[in-house]
Amino acid sequence: MSFPADLLEPLRRGEHRALGRAISWMENGHPGARELMARVWPHLGRAVVIGITGSPGAGKSTLTDQLARALRAGGQRVGILAVDPTSPFSGGAILGDRIRMQRIAADPGIFIRSMATRGALGGLSRATQDAIDLLDAAGFDTVIVETVGVGQDEVDVVSCVQTCCVVLVPGMGDEIQAIKAGIMEVADLFIINKADRDGADQVERELEAMKSLAMVRDWDPPVLRTIAQVGQGVPALLDQVRKHGLWLRAHGGLARKARERARLRFESLLAEAAVRRARAHAGPERVEAAIQGIADRTLDPYSAVGDILGET
Amino acid sequence: MSFPADLLEPLRRGEHRALGRAISWMENGHPGARELMARVWPHLGRAVVIGITGSPGAGKSTLTDQLARALRAGGQRVGILAVDPTSPFSGGAILGDRIRMQRIAADPGIFIRSMATRGALGGLSRATQDAIDLLDAAGFDTVIVETVGVGQDEVDVVSCVQTCCVVLVPGMGDEIQAIKAGIMEVADLFIINKADRDGADQVERELEAMKSLAMVRDWDPPVLRTIAQVGQGVPALLDQVRKHGLWLRAHGGLARKARERARLRFESLLAEAAVRRARAHAGPERVEAAIQGIADRTLDPYSAVGDILGET
Repeated sequence: MSFPADLLEPLRRGEHRALGRAISWMENGHPGARELMARVWPHLGRAVVIGITGSPGAGKSTLTDQLARALRAGGQRVGILAVDPTSPFSGGAILGDRIRMQRIAADPGIFIRSMATRGALGGLSRATQDAIDLLDAAGFDTVIVETVGVGQDEVDVVSCVQTCCVVLVPGMGDEIQAIKAGIMEVADLFIINKADRDGADQVERELEAMKSLAMVRDWDPPVLRTIAQVGQGVPALLDQVRKHGLWLRAHGGLARKARERARLRFESLLAEAAVRRARAHAGPERVEAAIQGIADRTLDPYSAVGDILGET
Repeated sequence: MSFPADLLEPLRRGEHRALGRAISWMENGHPGARELMARVWPHLGRAVVIGITGSPGAGKSTLTDQLARALRAGGQRVGILAVDPTSPFSGGAILGDRIRMQRIAADPGIFIRSMATRGALGGLSRATQDAIDLLDAAGFDTVIVETVGVGQDEVDVVSCVQTCCVVLVPGMGDEIQAIKAGIMEVADLFIINKADRDGADQVERELEAMKSLAMVRDWDPPVLRTIAQVGQGVPALLDQVRKHGLWLRAHGGLARKARERARLRFESLLAEAAVRRARAHAGPERVEAAIQGIADRTLDPYSAVGDILGET
């Protein structure tokens, strides 16, 4: 299967195998990737994209699963993209992910994919954006993007989904709950998960204080409580997602988010392409010589890059 | 002070004010930045650079302070770069940092600087590398780079310091202790901090198991225990840093690390410069039109970037 046309039809029908292959094409920069995206591009813009972010241990995966289940019960087809630039050193979470995948992989109405870091240059953000578009093209009604929310890539990704949910838990110190400041600012909904634990009121007070201090926005992000383990609060959460979608539609927010997302896509692709072009133009020998010159201290890095780019 | 020459002499003397200004120049892309780096470049390579990484709450700041104090007692001048792409939403850690700065800011033999995220394009990694070099040029004997260790930028930074220390704590679940897999692989020393807590033995067993499974390396990273709060284990840690430095010297490791660091510097600077050049060449109107085309779905992002770069 090497021509985008062969992949296009099964992809548009939502076949998992074609979708998996198409996402890999985009990730790996397959020669057909660019044409594939050009072909699906006119068909996009239908899927609702929800971001779920928060610290490790906040229960994001469980919440995502429950959301998917509830949407599925309503007849929707759901795509899940698990973006995780971190990875614990023992097998715990990986094993957990495998079990989870087995549990819902049997349902053709749910597609789940882990997005790992690819390259240093905004690759994760770019690949995730591509995957969102492919799921959209494949007719999935809702795409849930789940991320740990610590790297700049992740802030970029969740900052331009339709509804960005930030998940907190009671009883974690601020230090542990550390979430990139930029993510708090783009939150559309705050979720206090594991809300049956001590300290839920305190987290809510802190959130409200932060909102009143820091956030002057048209949309006031509500604070919801969930116990994802048993599905509690999930229907209310989906209700708020719908409300937020309607609000965006009524206030020109969808067009604004589309522009933000377009800007992000442009910038991450430009970075990749500009570097690829500069490297190809200089050739590998000159690049290696420049790096060796920096290592030997015969050439400073700014001059080395200037030389490669042919600047004077 | 606008000519690099005016900054160069006080910088080389290690004056904090000049150093702070020089780091800001590099961060902000001041017109004199490139020349400044070219001028200091021949003077570099003397400082020992130690990386301290680990999850929020692992006690990295306290450990860093104790290391600085011990090195200072030995007559060294010490630079501390605190790289933090995350930021808790309440003021806790920030306040902690302020108190810490007040405490050691009075000593001209210790220079401390927080490195925040600057731009999306490997900016944090690049700016931190610049700051390491400036501290080196200013005659600091040891530079400690302290980072949360979750983003790719941070892995890049600590992967090419002389000695990379990964700090863990007993009693944190794997999920919470989530550290980027890439960082475990580049660890030169493992430190179990807060070692008086229950569970230190378990963390050590897990580390040893992981090492025997995953790591086939010439240098076998030792596992040390510290209680940073009271300084316990700090002399032994510094001893291991010295041992690792000697080992690197004897096994060609310093040259290898220098090449890795040169490659990283080259790549992050190339990304910044190539994008800047492509944007300048296209002009802001064409860039904005391309982004609007993507948002309107009249132009797919790959084609938009191809147009801007003049690819066919």
